[in-house]
Amino acid sequence: MIEMTTKTGRMGAREIYEALRDQIMSLVYGTDGLLPSSRALAGEMGVARSTVTVAYEQLAAEGFIETRHGARPRVARAVVAQGRTRAISRTPAHKMRLSAFGERLRQDPPRWTEPPRGLIANFRYGELSPSDFPVLVWKKAVTAAMARKPERLAYDDPCGALRLRTALQGYLWRSRSVRCELDQIVVVNGSQQGLDICARLLLDAGDRFVMEDPGYQMAHHAFAVTGAIAVPIPVDAEGLQTERLDGIEARLAYVTPSHQYPLGGVMPVGRRHQLLAWARKTDAYVIEDDYDSEYRYDTKPIPPLHALEGSDNVIYLGTVSKTLSPTLRIGYLVVPAGLRSLFAAAKQIMDRHTPLVEQDALAAMLESGAYDRHVRRVRRRNAERQQALLGALRRRFGDRIRIEGTAAGLHVVAWFDGLPQKREDALIRAARAKGVGIYAVSALFDGRSTGRARSRKTIGLVMGYSALEPAQIERGCKLLAQAAGELD
Amino acid sequence: MIEMTTKTGRMGAREIYEALRDQIMSLVYGTDGLLPSSRALAGEMGVARSTVTVAYEQLAAEGFIETRHGARPRVARAVVAQGRTRAISRTPAHKMRLSAFGERLRQDPPRWTEPPRGLIANFRYGELSPSDFPVLVWKKAVTAAMARKPERLAYDDPCGALRLRTALQGYLWRSRSVRCELDQIVVVNGSQQGLDICARLLLDAGDRFVMEDPGYQMAHHAFAVTGAIAVPIPVDAEGLQTERLDGIEARLAYVTPSHQYPLGGVMPVGRRHQLLAWARKTDAYVIEDDYDSEYRYDTKPIPPLHALEGSDNVIYLGTVSKTLSPTLRIGYLVVPAGLRSLFAAAKQIMDRHTPLVEQDALAAMLESGAYDRHVRRVRRRNAERQQALLGALRRRFGDRIRIEGTAAGLHVVAWFDGLPQKREDALIRAARAKGVGIYAVSALFDGRSTGRARSRKTIGLVMGYSALEPAQIERGCKLLAQAAGELD
Repeated sequence: MIEMTTKTGRMGAREIYEALRDQIMSLVYGTDGLLPSSRALAGEMGVARSTVTVAYEQLAAEGFIETRHGARPRVARAVVAQGRTRAISRTPAHKMRLSAFGERLRQDPPRWTEPPRGLIANFRYGELSPSDFPVLVWKKAVTAAMARKPERLAYDDPCGALRLRTALQGYLWRSRSVRCELDQIVVVNGSQQGLDICARLLLDAGDRFVMEDPGYQMAHHAFAVTGAIAVPIPVDAEGLQTERLDGIEARLAYVTPSHQYPLGGVMPVGRRHQLLAWARKTDAYVIEDDYDSEYRYDTKPIPPLHALEGSDNVIYLGTVSKTLSPTLRIGYLVVPAGLRSLFAAAKQIMDRHTPLVEQDALAAMLESGAYDRHVRRVRRRNAERQQALLGALRRRFGDRIRIEGTAAGLHVVAWFDGLPQKREDALIRAARAKGVGIYAVSALFDGRSTGRARSRKTIGLVMGYSALEPAQIERGCKLLAQAAGELD
Repeated sequence: MIEMTTKTGRMGAREIYEALRDQIMSLVYGTDGLLPSSRALAGEMGVARSTVTVAYEQLAAEGFIETRHGARPRVARAVVAQGRTRAISRTPAHKMRLSAFGERLRQDPPRWTEPPRGLIANFRYGELSPSDFPVLVWKKAVTAAMARKPERLAYDDPCGALRLRTALQGYLWRSRSVRCELDQIVVVNGSQQGLDICARLLLDAGDRFVMEDPGYQMAHHAFAVTGAIAVPIPVDAEGLQTERLDGIEARLAYVTPSHQYPLGGVMPVGRRHQLLAWARKTDAYVIEDDYDSEYRYDTKPIPPLHALEGSDNVIYLGTVSKTLSPTLRIGYLVVPAGLRSLFAAAKQIMDRHTPLVEQDALAAMLESGAYDRHVRRVRRRNAERQQALLGALRRRFGDRIRIEGTAAGLHVVAWFDGLPQKREDALIRAARAKGVGIYAVSALFDGRSTGRARSRKTIGLVMGYSALEPAQIERGCKLLAQAAGELD
C-alpha cells in the first residue's frame, strides 16, 4: 500500500511525514482510514520504528490522523469528511464580491504596460536616463546606511525617518522657500502614495474634486476611485483658469502650478492667490504637486503656493522620481499642522513606513550637498536635451509646429498645427513603425470640459526627453518628420 | 526705499529678484504699487541695469509685477487685491473636513511610539536583532542590483519585479507547498500593505469581517477603518474555533493558522477544512497571514491553508519582516487568479510599485540559496533564544507560569497564574523601572467576545525574544521575577 522510496533508499521522519500527508490528502486510505501500525510501516520501509513514530506524532499534532495507544492510527474524521465533499469543492466559481472601491477600480483600472524596448527614440514622459543616476554617490550612501547598526530592527516612525525629514526641511526652505515644521513632513512611497493618502483622508463617494484639464491621469485615478466626481477646469498658458473656480464647491483641487502637467504653463501669482482664496472660502484643500520644480531653465524656481500667505490648506507634494529615479519610490508631503497626526496614522495603516535604507541614503545626499550638486548636473543635461529637442523639431517641422512648456520640466508639448487630430492614431502607428515612441496629449483631456474641443483640432504630443541622449532626440525627430510626411 | 545688501556688497539678478519678491509680498509698495525704474534701481544698488532687468523680467513672468515699455513697473493688481484681504486670511481656523475613512481613523488611530532605548531587556514582539541581519550578503545583492543598467529608469510592474516573483514562486513551493502562477503573486510593502489592499478591495462600511480573538491589532485596524465591523471569534490552543463560524455571514476572515498570533496555537487540518468550507459556503475570502512560518522548531512547517484542496478563496500573505528586517518593507500576496488584475490595479493606484533595488536584491538571495541558508541560521539562533527564555522563566517562576505557543515563531505567551490581571499595569511599571520592557496580551483581546473573560483572570505577556541575546533574556527574566515578587 505504501510506496515510498528515495534515491538513497532510506527515508527520514520528514520524508515519511510528507509522503503520508500527501497520501492522506489524496484519500488513499479509503473510508475506514486506517494506517499501518508504526511497527509494520517501519518494517516495510526498512527504517527504525522511532522514525515512523516521529512522523506519526507530527501528523497527529497537525490533525491529519488520530492515534490511540495500542491501536493503528486512523485518518482524522474531519479529513475523511472533507474527502466526501471534495467533488463539490472542485467546482470553482467562487463568487467575486468586491467593495465599492474594488468595483470602481475594476471598471476603470489604471493601465500599466511594459515599457517598449529597443526603440530608436521613445519620447515617453516620466522616465529618466540611467546615465544620469549618481551611482557612486548613491551606492556610498546606501552602504553607509546599511552599516549603521541600530539597537534593534524595529518599525520606524510612520512619518518618515527623523534624519530625512530634517534634511528635507532644510532643502525645501533653501530650494523652494517652503517653511514648515519637521512634523508637517510625511515621507511617502513616491508622489502616488501621497495622492492616495489625500484621496482617502479627504474624499468620499459623491464629493467633488477639481482637476486641471488636461491633467495628470494618475492623480485623477487616485481621487476618482474613492467615488468622488472630477470637476475639470481648463488650463491655458498660465495654468489653471482660476477665475472659473467661482461658485464651484469641491473638497479639494489638484494643481501643478510650477509647471502645469502636461501643457507646461506657470501659474502667475495673481491666479495663485485667487486659487488660495477660493480654497479658504470653500474650505477645500489644495494639493500642490511640485513634481518637477528642480528643472527650471530660466532663473530661480517660482515659490510654490505653499510659500505664499494664506496657504494653510495647501498640501505640498514633492518627489525624487524626477531627480533620482522613479524606481526608488520616495516622495514627501508637507501637510497642514492640523492634519499631521492623521496623515501619520494613514501611512501607518497603509504600510507602516517607507523603507529605511533609502530614506537614510537620501538624507545623507541632502546633508552633504551631493543632492543639490546632482540636481544642478542633471538640470544642465536636461537643458541640453531640451535644446536638442527644440532644435531638431524646428529643423524638421519649421513653423508647422508650436511648442509649449519650455520654461521648466522634463517634457514639452508639441502641437502639429497642420495635422488634424483624427490622424493621431495613424501618426503614432507610423512613428512606432520607424522605432519612435510618441504619446498624444489628447489622452490627458477630460471628456467633458471645453479643453477637449481644442485638443480635437490638431495633434498634440507630450514629448519627454529626459531618458534620451541628444543624438537619439535628433534621430527620433527626423524619423517622426518622415512619419508625419507620409501621412500627407 | 530699497534696502538690499549682501556681504560682498554686490547683488546678482537672483538676489534682487528675491528681495523684491519678498518686499512685494510684504506689501511695501503701498496702494499705487509703483517700483523704481530699472535704471534708478541699478544706480541705487551699483549694479548693471541689465541685472535689474533680468530680475524684473522674472517677476513679471511670474505675475508679481506688470511692466509696460517706458513706464515704471507696477505690482500686479491681483497681488494688491490680495493685500487688502490679508487681514481676513490671517484668521486661521480652516475647517477640517475629512472623509468617512479619515474620520474613523481620527477617532481610532493606530499607535506608534519610538522604541524605548537603553533597556536591559525589551521583550517587545516583532523586532529583530541587527546581529542576525546578513549584512554582507545583502550588501552584495544590493550593489549588484544597483549596477544593473536598464535601458531607462521607468515605473515597473505594479505586481512586482518579474525576477522576484519568479524567485518567490519557487520559494513558496519548496518551503511552504504553495503552488501558484507567477501572476498570482503581488509584491507589497510589507504585510501591512497587503492587509490594506485586501481591506480596500473587499470591505465596505457595514460589512463584517472575522478576527481571531485575541488577534493582530494592525490587521484589525486596517479592516475596521473601512467601516466594516469585526466579528471576534475566540481562539484556543488550536487556533480559531472554527466551529463557531457556523451561521456567521462575513466578507472575510483573517487568520494566522500556522502560529496563531498571539497565543501560538497551530490550527489542525480538521479546522482548516472547516474554515475553508465556511468560506466557500458564505462566499467569504480567507486571509492567511503566514507571518512567521519560517520559524518552526519541531519538524517541517505545516502546509498552509493555501496548499489545501478547496482554497480558491484564500489570499496568502507572506513577509520578510521576520527573517530579514521589518524596515525593508517587503511582503507578498498570493491572490486568487480572478483577483489578480484587481490587486495589480490597486497597488498601482496606491504607490505604483515596491522599490526596485530591494526587490532585485531579495530575488538574488532567493535564487542563490542565500535566503534559505540565512533562514536556517536565524532559525537556529531563535531556537536558542527561545530555549534561553523558557529556561530562564522556568528557573525564575517555576510552575507559577504557563507558556503557550512554543512550537514556532519569535514569541511565546507567558501566563502568570498567580497574578490577577488588575495588577497588570503595576507589573509593567515595576518591570520598566528595572529596565525590562514587557507587553500584555490583554491589549490584543477584543472587548466583546468571551476570550476577554479569560484574559481578565491572570496577567499574560506576549514575550518576543528575537531582538535579544541569551544573556539579556536571562537577565531580563531575573529582573522581571524581582518586579513580580515586589508586587506580592
